[in-house]
Amino acid sequence: MPSNKSIIFKAVPDGYPVAGEHMELVTKEIDIENFSLADGDILVKNHYMSLDPYMRGKMRHSYVKSYTPAYEIGQVLDGYGIAIVVKSNNKKYQVGDYFVGLIGWEEYSHITANVVSAEALAKEIFTKFKVPESHFIGLLGIPGMSAYVGLNKIGQPKKGETIFISAASGAVGQVVGQIAKIKGLRVIGSASDDSKIKYLEEELKFDGAFNYKTCNADEKLKELCPNGIDIYFDNVGGETLDIVINHLNNFARVVACGMISQYNTKDHYGVKNLIQIIGKRVLIQGFIVSDHFQEMESFRNEMVEWFKQGKLKYKEDIVEGIQNAPQALINILTGKKFGKMIVKIC
Amino acid sequence: MPSNKSIIFKAVPDGYPVAGEHMELVTKEIDIENFSLADGDILVKNHYMSLDPYMRGKMRHSYVKSYTPAYEIGQVLDGYGIAIVVKSNNKKYQVGDYFVGLIGWEEYSHITANVVSAEALAKEIFTKFKVPESHFIGLLGIPGMSAYVGLNKIGQPKKGETIFISAASGAVGQVVGQIAKIKGLRVIGSASDDSKIKYLEEELKFDGAFNYKTCNADEKLKELCPNGIDIYFDNVGGETLDIVINHLNNFARVVACGMISQYNTKDHYGVKNLIQIIGKRVLIQGFIVSDHFQEMESFRNEMVEWFKQGKLKYKEDIVEGIQNAPQALINILTGKKFGKMIVKIC
Repeated sequence: MPSNKSIIFKAVPDGYPVAGEHMELVTKEIDIENFSLADGDILVKNHYMSLDPYMRGKMRHSYVKSYTPAYEIGQVLDGYGIAIVVKSNNKKYQVGDYFVGLIGWEEYSHITANVVSAEALAKEIFTKFKVPESHFIGLLGIPGMSAYVGLNKIGQPKKGETIFISAASGAVGQVVGQIAKIKGLRVIGSASDDSKIKYLEEELKFDGAFNYKTCNADEKLKELCPNGIDIYFDNVGGETLDIVINHLNNFARVVACGMISQYNTKDHYGVKNLIQIIGKRVLIQGFIVSDHFQEMESFRNEMVEWFKQGKLKYKEDIVEGIQNAPQALINILTGKKFGKMIVKIC
Repeated sequence: MPSNKSIIFKAVPDGYPVAGEHMELVTKEIDIENFSLADGDILVKNHYMSLDPYMRGKMRHSYVKSYTPAYEIGQVLDGYGIAIVVKSNNKKYQVGDYFVGLIGWEEYSHITANVVSAEALAKEIFTKFKVPESHFIGLLGIPGMSAYVGLNKIGQPKKGETIFISAASGAVGQVVGQIAKIKGLRVIGSASDDSKIKYLEEELKFDGAFNYKTCNADEKLKELCPNGIDIYFDNVGGETLDIVINHLNNFARVVACGMISQYNTKDHYGVKNLIQIIGKRVLIQGFIVSDHFQEMESFRNEMVEWFKQGKLKYKEDIVEGIQNAPQALINILTGKKFGKMIVKIC
């Protein structure tokens, strides 16, 4: 019988999670032939899984409310992935079909009927759009759509404006920057490593980028955004947000997409410059991409068109083997990855 | 010759301004008969002047940029007021007409042609709307319009929602609360004194109010907003904003109208709970009422209608004599006033 390695949620971390301590590898076997499926269920073999910062937010005690349910102690962690159906009790799915949606951090997942039917991502997308499989959990998945929705709906980009993007080479940031370039904006980004800066400037043609770990962000923003910032696409929160507020123009928009600098600490950074948002008439808006899933198709159509025209690239950081997923998630949280983090499961 | 007492801006304060030290009384005489007016100018005798928190923001060094110009050292302070024309070189104004607009902190003001023509507030309003003269710099002036614009445009109030208002008995807050009641919201407010709380609950029929100086705001908000807060009309910023974020509902709106708690300190409070605005999809929007002056007439028409129907009250704190204006401004900044602060000049 094939093995089914999985990662279970073992304990709630206080700060950064630790592999083994908060996430644990468990190996079992799976009897596919005799696996029991209720009406509408499917059994899938997982190909790729997306790892994302929001997962840290789910590693909390269940009594703490948030927009996503907490992971339950002892249960297999979950996330978005791409899988192949190996057994089906659902008329819409045949063995060999693709499934894109919520899977476990494991080699085989039992997808129950309610999850199957809730996923907006249908198997037909692979034949309709001809792009690499893994892009459906990155460029054309939740990170890409977060970029698209956040920039367009909240950022309201106008040609000639300046946008600054933090975590600019990350899963979301790199897409934001490229769409902003397509729309004629001046695009400036920050990242945690010189190789990422080179990528932003040379490959993605950003107008400027800096390594926030080795540069003074305030001085760099003054230098690279001489006309101020009209849109801040915030993936990090904290001190960076505070500094950026100093450089915002009147009527600037702050797209509050993520605050990764604050996910692993209880001692949250206090943002002191908020007083400026009145005089500058700044808009700060938080959003969750799942509120906009009804626009998935129009998002995909536009993105695929740009992709085929060579206007969009997508850097992926692919880790092989489900056993390496815990450390890969930690690497996202500490900035030790480059591009969209994906686990290749098989 | 009549005297013309005025208050000049003497020095930039670090913290709270001090009468005499940062604002100084100067008494001169004025020769009305021989007063020279260029084409389009008028000379007015000031009746009422509005004192507002934003004036603290103008008491800065001129090299510090902001949305309003800094007061110049040695010049007469200015603000919105109501005056009577005593001499005119402007065809639109006759002696005895009302002028409503930018005047000096003084008994007589020389209004130059550019200021006369820039004022959207025309002399006809007194005959058109029959409300007390002083209301044109309060309920129907900038504070009232700030309440109206901020609540309607940013707050987007819906019947049955809960609004929380800080500085709720102030020039803006009391209007916000009453409009929100008209629109069917649950209205909760905070203020700095038990007499103000009594006024909010008994006179303005707020659904609840608390003295933030003697109560625990977090506990009071839990008690008075059991279904959370949908709109926060923020007049104070700082720690109150931080606490309120904990109680915001999904899709809540924060109307950033003022942050009076931060005006008199360089050691700004650090807001730590911003991370919640993503999961809750909160909108925070700063605004300046002068961006919306084109809607002054529709604002006045709707407000006067409510006023005549007895649905709007307006509490004024009237101080007599221009020599008392400096202390009156300080009293606004320290919360030692009750209602809209107005100086009756003559």
